[in-house]
Amino acid sequence: MLGHLFSSKAMKQVFSDEATLTRWLEVEAALASVQAGYGVMPEEAAVAIHNACSIDLYNLDELGQHIAKASHPLTPVIVAIENNAGEHGQYVHYGATTQDIMDTGMMLQIRDGLDLAIRAQGELVTTCTKQARKWRDLPMAGRTHGQHAVPITLGLKFALWASEANRHVVRLKALRSDLTVQFAGAAGTLATLGGDGARVRAGLARALCLKDPQESWHTTRDPIALIVSQLCISSATCGKIANEVVNLQRTEIGELAEGAAAGTGGSSTMPQKRNPMMAQNIAALARLMAAKPATALEAMMHEHERDMAALTLEWVVVPESFIYAHAALDQTVQLVSHIQVNKQRIAENLRATGGLICSEAVMMDLASDMGRSEAHHVIADIVAETVQSGTGFTDALCAHPQISKLRTREQIEALLEPENYLGEAVEVVDRIVRELEGSGP
Amino acid sequence: MLGHLFSSKAMKQVFSDEATLTRWLEVEAALASVQAGYGVMPEEAAVAIHNACSIDLYNLDELGQHIAKASHPLTPVIVAIENNAGEHGQYVHYGATTQDIMDTGMMLQIRDGLDLAIRAQGELVTTCTKQARKWRDLPMAGRTHGQHAVPITLGLKFALWASEANRHVVRLKALRSDLTVQFAGAAGTLATLGGDGARVRAGLARALCLKDPQESWHTTRDPIALIVSQLCISSATCGKIANEVVNLQRTEIGELAEGAAAGTGGSSTMPQKRNPMMAQNIAALARLMAAKPATALEAMMHEHERDMAALTLEWVVVPESFIYAHAALDQTVQLVSHIQVNKQRIAENLRATGGLICSEAVMMDLASDMGRSEAHHVIADIVAETVQSGTGFTDALCAHPQISKLRTREQIEALLEPENYLGEAVEVVDRIVRELEGSGP
Amino acid sequence: MLGHLFSSKAMKQVFSDEATLTRWLEVEAALASVQAGYGVMPEEAAVAIHNACSIDLYNLDELGQHIAKASHPLTPVIVAIENNAGEHGQYVHYGATTQDIMDTGMMLQIRDGLDLAIRAQGELVTTCTKQARKWRDLPMAGRTHGQHAVPITLGLKFALWASEANRHVVRLKALRSDLTVQFAGAAGTLATLGGDGARVRAGLARALCLKDPQESWHTTRDPIALIVSQLCISSATCGKIANEVVNLQRTEIGELAEGAAAGTGGSSTMPQKRNPMMAQNIAALARLMAAKPATALEAMMHEHERDMAALTLEWVVVPESFIYAHAALDQTVQLVSHIQVNKQRIAENLRATGGLICSEAVMMDLASDMGRSEAHHVIADIVAETVQSGTGFTDALCAHPQISKLRTREQIEALLEPENYLGEAVEVVDRIVRELEGSGP
Amino acid sequence: MLGHLFSSKAMKQVFSDEATLTRWLEVEAALASVQAGYGVMPEEAAVAIHNACSIDLYNLDELGQHIAKASHPLTPVIVAIENNAGEHGQYVHYGATTQDIMDTGMMLQIRDGLDLAIRAQGELVTTCTKQARKWRDLPMAGRTHGQHAVPITLGLKFALWASEANRHVVRLKALRSDLTVQFAGAAGTLATLGGDGARVRAGLARALCLKDPQESWHTTRDPIALIVSQLCISSATCGKIANEVVNLQRTEIGELAEGAAAGTGGSSTMPQKRNPMMAQNIAALARLMAAKPATALEAMMHEHERDMAALTLEWVVVPESFIYAHAALDQTVQLVSHIQVNKQRIAENLRATGGLICSEAVMMDLASDMGRSEAHHVIADIVAETVQSGTGFTDALCAHPQISKLRTREQIEALLEPENYLGEAVEVVDRIVRELEGSGP
Repeated sequence: MLGHLFSSKAMKQVFSDEATLTRWLEVEAALASVQAGYGVMPEEAAVAIHNACSIDLYNLDELGQHIAKASHPLTPVIVAIENNAGEHGQYVHYGATTQDIMDTGMMLQIRDGLDLAIRAQGELVTTCTKQARKWRDLPMAGRTHGQHAVPITLGLKFALWASEANRHVVRLKALRSDLTVQFAGAAGTLATLGGDGARVRAGLARALCLKDPQESWHTTRDPIALIVSQLCISSATCGKIANEVVNLQRTEIGELAEGAAAGTGGSSTMPQKRNPMMAQNIAALARLMAAKPATALEAMMHEHERDMAALTLEWVVVPESFIYAHAALDQTVQLVSHIQVNKQRIAENLRATGGLICSEAVMMDLASDMGRSEAHHVIADIVAETVQSGTGFTDALCAHPQISKLRTREQIEALLEPENYLGEAVEVVDRIVRELEGSGP
Repeated sequence: MLGHLFSSKAMKQVFSDEATLTRWLEVEAALASVQAGYGVMPEEAAVAIHNACSIDLYNLDELGQHIAKASHPLTPVIVAIENNAGEHGQYVHYGATTQDIMDTGMMLQIRDGLDLAIRAQGELVTTCTKQARKWRDLPMAGRTHGQHAVPITLGLKFALWASEANRHVVRLKALRSDLTVQFAGAAGTLATLGGDGARVRAGLARALCLKDPQESWHTTRDPIALIVSQLCISSATCGKIANEVVNLQRTEIGELAEGAAAGTGGSSTMPQKRNPMMAQNIAALARLMAAKPATALEAMMHEHERDMAALTLEWVVVPESFIYAHAALDQTVQLVSHIQVNKQRIAENLRATGGLICSEAVMMDLASDMGRSEAHHVIADIVAETVQSGTGFTDALCAHPQISKLRTREQIEALLEPENYLGEAVEVVDRIVRELEGSGP
Repeated sequence: MLGHLFSSKAMKQVFSDEATLTRWLEVEAALASVQAGYGVMPEEAAVAIHNACSIDLYNLDELGQHIAKASHPLTPVIVAIENNAGEHGQYVHYGATTQDIMDTGMMLQIRDGLDLAIRAQGELVTTCTKQARKWRDLPMAGRTHGQHAVPITLGLKFALWASEANRHVVRLKALRSDLTVQFAGAAGTLATLGGDGARVRAGLARALCLKDPQESWHTTRDPIALIVSQLCISSATCGKIANEVVNLQRTEIGELAEGAAAGTGGSSTMPQKRNPMMAQNIAALARLMAAKPATALEAMMHEHERDMAALTLEWVVVPESFIYAHAALDQTVQLVSHIQVNKQRIAENLRATGGLICSEAVMMDLASDMGRSEAHHVIADIVAETVQSGTGFTDALCAHPQISKLRTREQIEALLEPENYLGEAVEVVDRIVRELEGSGP
Repeated sequence: MLGHLFSSKAMKQVFSDEATLTRWLEVEAALASVQAGYGVMPEEAAVAIHNACSIDLYNLDELGQHIAKASHPLTPVIVAIENNAGEHGQYVHYGATTQDIMDTGMMLQIRDGLDLAIRAQGELVTTCTKQARKWRDLPMAGRTHGQHAVPITLGLKFALWASEANRHVVRLKALRSDLTVQFAGAAGTLATLGGDGARVRAGLARALCLKDPQESWHTTRDPIALIVSQLCISSATCGKIANEVVNLQRTEIGELAEGAAAGTGGSSTMPQKRNPMMAQNIAALARLMAAKPATALEAMMHEHERDMAALTLEWVVVPESFIYAHAALDQTVQLVSHIQVNKQRIAENLRATGGLICSEAVMMDLASDMGRSEAHHVIADIVAETVQSGTGFTDALCAHPQISKLRTREQIEALLEPENYLGEAVEVVDRIVRELEGSGP
């Protein structure tokens, strides 16, 4: 009932049982075809096996029962293909080991998974870039340690998200172009094929549009661990964005709000509630992902030439990582593109401290006359007094004997104007928008 | 297709969508019934709600779609109950918050889950105890750092597993008896019920056979984290046992073997293979579990009075922990009860080092005459020489000038007899068997 | 330079090199003494070994170099004791294996560590209880999903923390009373000691005030994993409390503030900043702890009769867990005891939504007349309208045709008074304070 | 005392307090110098600050006490520099925020850390390549699921390690070339510097030989998470290699042994023991590393414009990751370069199953006549019979009615010769050696 929270339909389908079996059949068919090309088997056998590898011929439930009974993930599939291939059945799975088929099948699924992830990640870049351009110069309170620091613009926040998301696009694409076929035989030597091994592996790679690793990777799983790591890192970015929305939607802050169709985000008991349900869910997904690399790293520590105790971990961690990561990306795209911005609350909050948010501006300005350190002390004293007494910061600054000699009230008021203390915020937004616009999916 | 590797049917059912909904309905029905008892609602309303809470009235797929659409996990369920309760619908979910129902429902599922876990854990105690008694005094090589150390008995290995498994039984039972109802309202004050809150919560606890926490635990999730931790610890024990079987089944060791019905554990390409498939799978399950506490601990860090970003983590980590842990326990029971013991290989391995495995025995015996430290040096020198030259250890000992003055060949041969150097192995087995027999499920 | 953030002096000392060596010496001395009692060695030997086990005789740096050179953690220590014990050196470490000494030494350190943890945990109970009593009935906004929900009292927040912290005290004490001696010899059979093994182990347990496990726990590490788990769970509670302070100290909320001596929590550049530095640090500690159980669980999966690859993990995870957990507890005690409460901001925030925080109160009151569901709809509509139009909630309620027939303005105003909708908040505080006062350290 | 197990001296030094402070001073000095270049401060100020940033002027212990007292990691350092810079002190830390200095300092340490890691990783490639060439064609048992599978060569094992290690070199170098300066001011806008911000940042990047990020990365920590991930992945490879040695050194296998200077790897009680202490330690290090990404991912989830609760995590996880990873790499280089190969045991094990290890060879050979599937059945039956009856595999094959018609005893004996069934093992070794030789550090 709650599955939609943790998965997108598209990615669930990539790693569904049906897709998995389809990929295995695809690999077995391609293997036969390539081997026929090199004379390892007769052409007719490859045709028969190709026909026998149609997903329509298989009943998933039935096969699942055979697999459970046989305590072997692939043998029942091979037997079924053999049966369907009739007299040519003997050529099915020729020279391959179980892991060759499963690893290559997984690579094909990873390719599909990366395609979906790259697309969603690209959409996140696009939507953040759009928001960055839209809110390019809206001043808002910058916060550090949860406290007002100095002003920023809302556009800067979105722009930095876009920039981070875009780095993920680049990394995901690099991983996408590095996927390899697995064909190495029982212990990585391809001894079954005599001298034909290397050629068949290369041919299989071409047939499936994967790279030829030129060696076995039965026990060298670093590429898988890298992919899982990057998916987790992508998800952490989503988690950060979502968490930011949850924080800025707090009743007392109210600057952003999760956009919602009617009826969502409400409470079963409190009529006034409007909860950032999706943002909270994304934050949870990012936390779920944080536990995945530990498993992927364990899975790297294979023993000897093949090791089921380690390999099995990938059968869980790879699909789950793709599914959670895509759910996080997908939901974050929705979150950012439908975000509601409350300009009034943003302005109110920015001015709520009566100029304290610009105390650094005053300090830096005075620093040119009295030194940074002295200026820090003077302003800090005034701030403390102001907070204690409740008098206005502007008045206190103007009344200070040292400052009043150096600056007019007009000057001080200008220093306390947030718009005047945005530094390079807008320039950074512009550069990022310029670089990323048009880089979308 | 591979789901059977990671789950038992029984535990999957406990946390199935149907079971989850059934529990929620059960809680809503019980709540109405208790409230009617205290006059919060009319008796007829409770009856109507009770009738409306029959699982047969609900279509899971349909409800799932409503839940996804509403972005709320429970509201559509409440609406459905209200509809089914007709004019009494207004009393459904009276004074409760969503999390009250979901938490209490989860507690009921945890109770079922613990019952299954306790039973399987108890069976592991029983089967290990049986094996301990059976192999009580079969001498075998004790190994440390992967190297032969001194002799133990096979029974001792099983007995220590039984003892560890039994500690888990005790802990799981303690957790089982500590499960509480959740009924706290919107922010933990039960303000909805005026003065009736505490009484209704206590009544609800009695009705559902849970404990009354006397306070809200909306944000105090330590009991959940404890339960997950213990399930992980139980699973680590399974992982250790399974890993031991994988190691002792190695071709070169061959002392234990995973018992298997015909056809299982074979290879798709190597006719001679017999693989410890189940043991490797259990080892993988234990590793999957090792990543769970991080999530359960994150889930403890709720914000304010309720926090969906944290709570959502439990919806994943609790079912998964129970499902993996029970799969691990279930499979380990099978593994241990059908384990094949190769007495011949055990005996061969024990004697393979020509007595070196008892070098400590000789050293300790000589220590009484020449001091432990001197004896260690003398024996270490002889061992080094023996290994280098290939001469027999017994002969080298007998030929040593110092030793030959102190011990006869007969004495030395007796010292090198593994059966004579078992220490308290058998006594420990006997004590554990005595304590644990009859403690089974 | 930053070590103080992650450790307390007291706990660092418990796990210092000096303390570790002291414990090892203590175990070797006690072993000799017990063995002399059972006639395993002459009385004079025990006396000589006892004298040789004085920490003052050892130079840690020198010993460290020998240990590194020997690639063995204990042998150089034994050799040094032997040298110091002169002619009786041969009786040093009699019948023991390295792990016996190191495990027992670690247990003594764990005992000290638990004592410190229990004390700090108890202080957390005390200080939370005090604050709960102090702020027993101060109404404040209860928040769920980061949004105002219904009122609570500040005392309730503290009381629930006290209750959670107190459960940890109980659990830590239970773990404290369950620590065992390790004395099992090379492979867990104590074969070195002939028939004396069990008696010596029991005697050693008594001498060191530990429990006698009556078996080897060289490879059954579940008690260690349990201890680490509980320390992590305790730390997660600290993390939650600290995170709450960070949130309630936000500029826009300002209800709580980390108490600070002059000069702390400031910024190197912004004069107005006052940052919750300690609270943020505690939150970080809790997150560091969340990764520890994975390692402790890995450490459970020992191979055979002893396994350094697994045991080594404990040498890192046990000290680190105690050190981080105690730092977290210690800092949380300081945080809670010096917390600054801003009653004005609490009152302002509570009323900031113009009564919306009590919309549930109105709904439940009306529910008795129009049903819960209908009341929810009516109030939700009014809330939506209010938020949109900016008119007051009270006025909107009074103006509503249905409501105006059922309730007077006076009644509505009373319903919107937070003090009137605190449910059982104060009763829960009172019960918890009553139970926990006097339970301190 | 046990620190050498978990760290190398070189990497410990990179992240020592002294190195950290040195880096901070270096950054402050460079900042002043760059700012003088752009007229932000007078030349004399930059000179004075440069002189004041000499590490010799600082007492680490004293500074540490100030830091602890101030509850601020950097302010006491700035004050100390100011004091040392005399009248020019006001220009110290001009326009920077604490995190600018600490982040940039960390980047410089990361650069040093990566240099060390790249060197050690490169040495691992070199040493594995050398071993691959040396043992290029030594046949040994290939193992899958812990069971003999088909023959490989020892060189292949080393070659695949070299190939994996080399991928890490490439990745580490890519990370090395991507390190950026941090200079962004209080909230990422560099408002303190008016229009000079971007130029100063670019200048600072050039001065420190880091990249200019052109934006703030105060809260975008994905590069850090990536670096930690890769260090963990590198360590997992070490763990795999080490674990392989532990396994192949088992008493019953005895094919490899950790090379050791006299006296190491022994037991405190068993004179015959020779333990793979270093290999076990590396395995432990790899497991410790597996828990690190969870923390690095948490650290990515910064709030707002800076967030100490997240940043603090990096101060622990970054140094620890480098220190553990380098210890693992360093020890693995030693392990592989001094590995002892027991050719006799390798040959004995290879032949221990009387040809069963080549049953696939026979099957594939017969497959050309009777089909793969039929051949699998026939051979599987003979294997089962052989194992049960104890008769020789060769004899059983020769005696089989179907096989005897198709193959002579000579042919069968040739098929069972491991040297004849090595597939592309040697070719793969040659290719990898060719590619990687000369790629060393």
